[in-house]
Amino acid sequence: RLRAVTERNKKTIAVIGGDGIGPEVVAEGLKVLSATVGADSLDFVHYDLGAERWLRTGEVLPDSVVDELRQADAILLGAVGAAPGSKTIPSGLLERGLLLRLRFLLDHYVNLRPSKLYPGVPTPLGENITSRGPIDFVVVREGTEGLYCGVGGATRAGTPHEIATEVSVNTAFGVERVVRDAYERAMKRRKKLTLVHKHNVLVNAGGLWNRLFLAVGEEYPEVETDYLHIDATTIAFVADPQRFDVIVTDNLFGDIITDLAGAVTGGIGLAASGNINPEGTAPSMFEPVHGSAPDIAGQGIADPTATISSVALMLDHLGMTAEARRIEAAVDADIAERGASKRSTTQVGDAIAARLS
Amino acid sequence: RLRAVTERNKKTIAVIGGDGIGPEVVAEGLKVLSATVGADSLDFVHYDLGAERWLRTGEVLPDSVVDELRQADAILLGAVGAAPGSKTIPSGLLERGLLLRLRFLLDHYVNLRPSKLYPGVPTPLGENITSRGPIDFVVVREGTEGLYCGVGGATRAGTPHEIATEVSVNTAFGVERVVRDAYERAMKRRKKLTLVHKHNVLVNAGGLWNRLFLAVGEEYPEVETDYLHIDATTIAFVADPQRFDVIVTDNLFGDIITDLAGAVTGGIGLAASGNINPEGTAPSMFEPVHGSAPDIAGQGIADPTATISSVALMLDHLGMTAEARRIEAAVDADIAERGASKRSTTQVGDAIAARLS
Ligand SMILES: CC(C)[C@H](C(=O)O)[C@@H](O)C(=O)O
Ligand SMILES: CC(C)[C@H](C(=O)O)[C@@H](O)C(=O)O
Repeated sequence: RLRAVTERNKKTIAVIGGDGIGPEVVAEGLKVLSATVGADSLDFVHYDLGAERWLRTGEVLPDSVVDELRQADAILLGAVGAAPGSKTIPSGLLERGLLLRLRFLLDHYVNLRPSKLYPGVPTPLGENITSRGPIDFVVVREGTEGLYCGVGGATRAGTPHEIATEVSVNTAFGVERVVRDAYERAMKRRKKLTLVHKHNVLVNAGGLWNRLFLAVGEEYPEVETDYLHIDATTIAFVADPQRFDVIVTDNLFGDIITDLAGAVTGGIGLAASGNINPEGTAPSMFEPVHGSAPDIAGQGIADPTATISSVALMLDHLGMTAEARRIEAAVDADIAERGASKRSTTQVGDAIAARLS
Repeated sequence: RLRAVTERNKKTIAVIGGDGIGPEVVAEGLKVLSATVGADSLDFVHYDLGAERWLRTGEVLPDSVVDELRQADAILLGAVGAAPGSKTIPSGLLERGLLLRLRFLLDHYVNLRPSKLYPGVPTPLGENITSRGPIDFVVVREGTEGLYCGVGGATRAGTPHEIATEVSVNTAFGVERVVRDAYERAMKRRKKLTLVHKHNVLVNAGGLWNRLFLAVGEEYPEVETDYLHIDATTIAFVADPQRFDVIVTDNLFGDIITDLAGAVTGGIGLAASGNINPEGTAPSMFEPVHGSAPDIAGQGIADPTATISSVALMLDHLGMTAEARRIEAAVDADIAERGASKRSTTQVGDAIAARLS
């Protein structure tokens, strides 16, 4: 963090466009960031990482790059990963070797994913649901444990006797800190916190989550709490999404419900996220919830809004809250005006940037 | 199976009402079953299992009861489990000790969960989605492996250094047989099969599922296949549910998406399921997807439709397909007529039974 201090207010943003539509949406995010903060108070350092680099060099994320990334004030990431059926890129190679490796190495234990249904935005939910009130909640997804640890393996692989395992690892240390973060966020919002798990089946992990959820809750008597099983949560997301304010959950459940949350609040093209290291021992990383969407890559039609909103989360994290609010307001205004018009990736970025400069 | 053979056509149905609304909905299921098949060709044997029995005797599912259940031709189950926050019943005790124990002991490896949006049934989805075409798919959820095995534990439990693990166990044997069952079901339907997993993160388990999905698929060249990650699946369930015909997935993912499927197709009060042992080495068990719903128990307002549809799945499995179709037709007709009228549990059962006797 030395460098950021010596250069005073100049921030270094590491940029990983990644695969598919990643570079396209990231370009618009940077455009908006520059328009908001001023290009001369920013240093962008681009990193060529993702499928292309791996195909060319066999490298996914060299240690030297990790060392450099650690020097940045924040990281903006587009998307990594090939199409699910790719024949050239092994499944999980980029996800685990790059995205998850960064989340784990940089201790991004708070994976923050807000969801808000903007007025006028098309949603798959009917009027019977949306008319009940505003939908506006945030999921605090644990980012460094659970089934994402990469613990597990295969025995007798490739034979009729193969056994493949995946291990969800949960620690009191890891659960307590993310639960506390969620209570803190609830305090700044509508003071309601829901734990999502499946403690009637996953009794060990669920027991630990439950115990710490209750214990930390004693420190936040003002926060109203409840609990939902993961399966019931998916029902509530479509039948009663208004009930939620802040949700805290594990890595996999958080992955699943935030895609669903994105879908019900107008599509994954709007869903922003932050991979946050709250103590700042390493830079946080901001990225849209959507993936690399290889099917629409290169056509200039991907919606960059989620990336632009992720930039607002980045500014929040960097302490530039006024600037973050300005981006949010510009996004709100753009969404309110866009209606059903089809605009290109660049057009959306330009329109939002124009409101800011 | 000896007994069923000697008594010729008389079928023994083991009945486990269970907890909460379980006994209420099961009573209506039996009413419809009797009306359809004729009470004198059935023997109902009721088992007192669930929260009450445990509180009274400390027994969840004695081995002797398991031995008896094995003699039945089929099992009808209402629901087991206490409220998520119960102070008197430990979380998971009844779920793992009774429901899951039966699924595992009786080798219910096909957990069959059909979803169909009936015309006129209220759904949280908007007209923009429902107008695209009929929603009618079935999830084949693996029922005897994955994270439901009960493998895992806690070390330094209750301390700030606790580590809690849950292990997903997947075998080639277990995956191949359920995948094959799903292909067979696809052949009898619209010949489309989707694998749902998360093989970009859970590379070991996902790799095994993927390998066998492709390998078994070679035997079914007529079946069109695709793959979706679990997170993307939740999006598709709300944004494009018409794309699905048959889905095959693991135990936990199947648990999650079938609740969501129930919600989008008119609510979990309509979602039926069968825990099927296709080879018949032990009796299959049929149950509504919903839980014990302690909040509305004892009020006579639970919707028994899911249980009644589960009885149709039971008759299908027992080879009484004509009778199964009759129940389905009666349910269809009742749903078409019910509109927004509020009827009691008994009224719904009576109305459907009246169409059958
Ligand atoms: C790409 C994948 C590894 C990732 C995840 O599962 O976390 C993505 O789905 C997300 O939600 O950020
Ligand atoms: C009660 C619970 C153990 C069960 C499950 O998770 O399988 C239920 O949710 C279901 O879907 O049948």
